[in-house]
Formats: sequence, C-alpha cells, structure tokens
Amino acid sequence: MNDHTSYMQALQATFDHEIPITREIGIRVAHYNGEQLALAAPIERNINHKATAFAGSLNSVGTLAGWGMIWLLLKELDIEGTIVIQDSANHFRRPVTQDFTAICRRPDSEQVNQFAHTLREKGRARLELQATIHEHNVLVMSFQGRYVALLNTREDRAL
Amino acid sequence: MNDHTSYMQALQATFDHEIPITREIGIRVAHYNGEQLALAAPIERNINHKATAFAGSLNSVGTLAGWGMIWLLLKELDIEGTIVIQDSANHFRRPVTQDFTAICRRPDSEQVNQFAHTLREKGRARLELQATIHEHNVLVMSFQGRYVALLNTREDRAL
Repeated sequence: MNDHTSYMQALQATFDHEIPITREIGIRVAHYNGEQLALAAPIERNINHKATAFAGSLNSVGTLAGWGMIWLLLKELDIEGTIVIQDSANHFRRPVTQDFTAICRRPDSEQVNQFAHTLREKGRARLELQATIHEHNVLVMSFQGRYVALLNTREDRAL
Repeated sequence: MNDHTSYMQALQATFDHEIPITREIGIRVAHYNGEQLALAAPIERNINHKATAFAGSLNSVGTLAGWGMIWLLLKELDIEGTIVIQDSANHFRRPVTQDFTAICRRPDSEQVNQFAHTLREKGRARLELQATIHEHNVLVMSFQGRYVALLNTREDRAL
C-alpha cells in the first residue's frame, strides 16, 4: 500500500466519521495520485425535481474536494492544522444527469511552498482552490473555494 | 388553514418527495408569511470536524431558501414553471454552532412584477436572491443565488 492509497483511506475515514452527512450524500474518495483528488457521489441519493443532481450536493462535493486537497497537503507537509472554508462560488453550467465526480488539482509547487511557509510562520494561511465536474468530457459545474488553514496549538493537539 | 400555511405544507412535500437528500439534512419549512421564507435544519445531522455546521449543508439550506421563495412566487402568480439555479456564492462569516435557519426575503413588488412579466412574455426569467443565517442576532452566513425560472410547456404539463 503506497502513501497515496493510505492517505485516501484516511481521508475517507475522516469524511465518514467527522462529517456524517457525507455518508448520506454517498461521498467516496475515488482517486488521489499526489496531483489530483477525485471525490465521487451517486446521482440516486442526490436527485432533484428535474431528475438531475441537487445543486447543494454538487456544492458539498466541490467543497470537500478542495478541503480534502488541503487535508492531504497538510499530511504531506507533516503539519497539524485545521481547515475551514471562508467563501465559495458555484457555477452550474449544465444539468448533472449521472453519478458525478469533482476533481481538485494540487496547487503548483510555488503556491504550496508559500502556503506552508505562511502557515508555519504566522499560524494561519489562505489557499484558493478550484474543483470541477465533467460529464462526457464537458464541464458541467465549477466550484471555487477560499480556505484558511490554522496551525493547531499545543492545546488543540491535547484534545 | 390560510394560503401561507398550505403553501408551506406543499413546499415541504416538494422537498421531501422531489429532493430526498433534504430529508437527511433535516430541512424543515419553518415559516412563511408572504414576505419571508425560513428553512431550518438541525446541527446534529450536519455536524463537521469542528463540531460546527458543514459548509455544504449551509449552502444546501441557502440554495433551497432561494429556490423555495421562487416556487412560492410562482404559486402566487399562478404560473406553472420550473426553477433551476445558475450560480451561487457563499460567505461563511462565523462558525454555525446550533440548529440553523436560512431566511430569504421576497423581492420588492417591482422586481416581482418584472420577473412575472418577463417569464410570461419570454418563457424564462432570471431572479437573484439572498439568504442569510443568523446566530444570536449576528450574521454568520450569507448566500446569494441566481436562479432561472422556465415556463412549463404544454408537453411538460402533460407529464
């Protein structure tokens, strides 16, 4: 089992145990290769009045794709931190009619280094990430989130 | 039973039957008085890793507060239409630590008249709505959504 596989399993366990509504949405950590994270969900549980995916569920999967990418970055950087979202924006381009997968790409090395440096120095750092959902190779939904990571204090770690 | 009460019940039934994930989130049509719509959800089902409300659930309740307001407007205008969301934005100002309620205010009469006129004339019309969540009288989350309503064709109505 390589690091990516064990990280995927740990992220799935985090979603399942710490954000229980993700089990109802059916969110599954589908893929992580160090460069991109893919979270999948079934259309059946997230269907709406138009027999397409509910916008709130698409936002949830996008939100967690960005959150999960930062969670993975912190693991790789060996930083103990907490991640919260400040702002997000969704653009629903076309209806989502099938099981869907949100993909978030890792920021480039310069952004990651800057993020890690600021977080270690200041105790908090911001990161903006995008997630996208495609259907038949067509972009159907785009998500943008601005997250803040906070270095855990010794007191947090004691909890 | 006045119109507002029967509309609330019909909207609740629409959420329950047509967007089943709303039952898992625990979304409840809490209040409608013709001027504002309030949708409530319990923190317990929507808890996250920080013991606060999951951002995706806050977005879901905001999305449906706006969607529900247009659904109610169409009922009152006696227009058969379908509502979809195009874009949305969330601003998470503070953590939500309790059961939460998103409130969407009815647009002013001029906006409603313009919306109804365009929808009847062109078969589609856009409306931008805000929803807000307060905790102890402090704004903790704001949502903005841009929706499109589409006049149902005779074929749709036959379905």
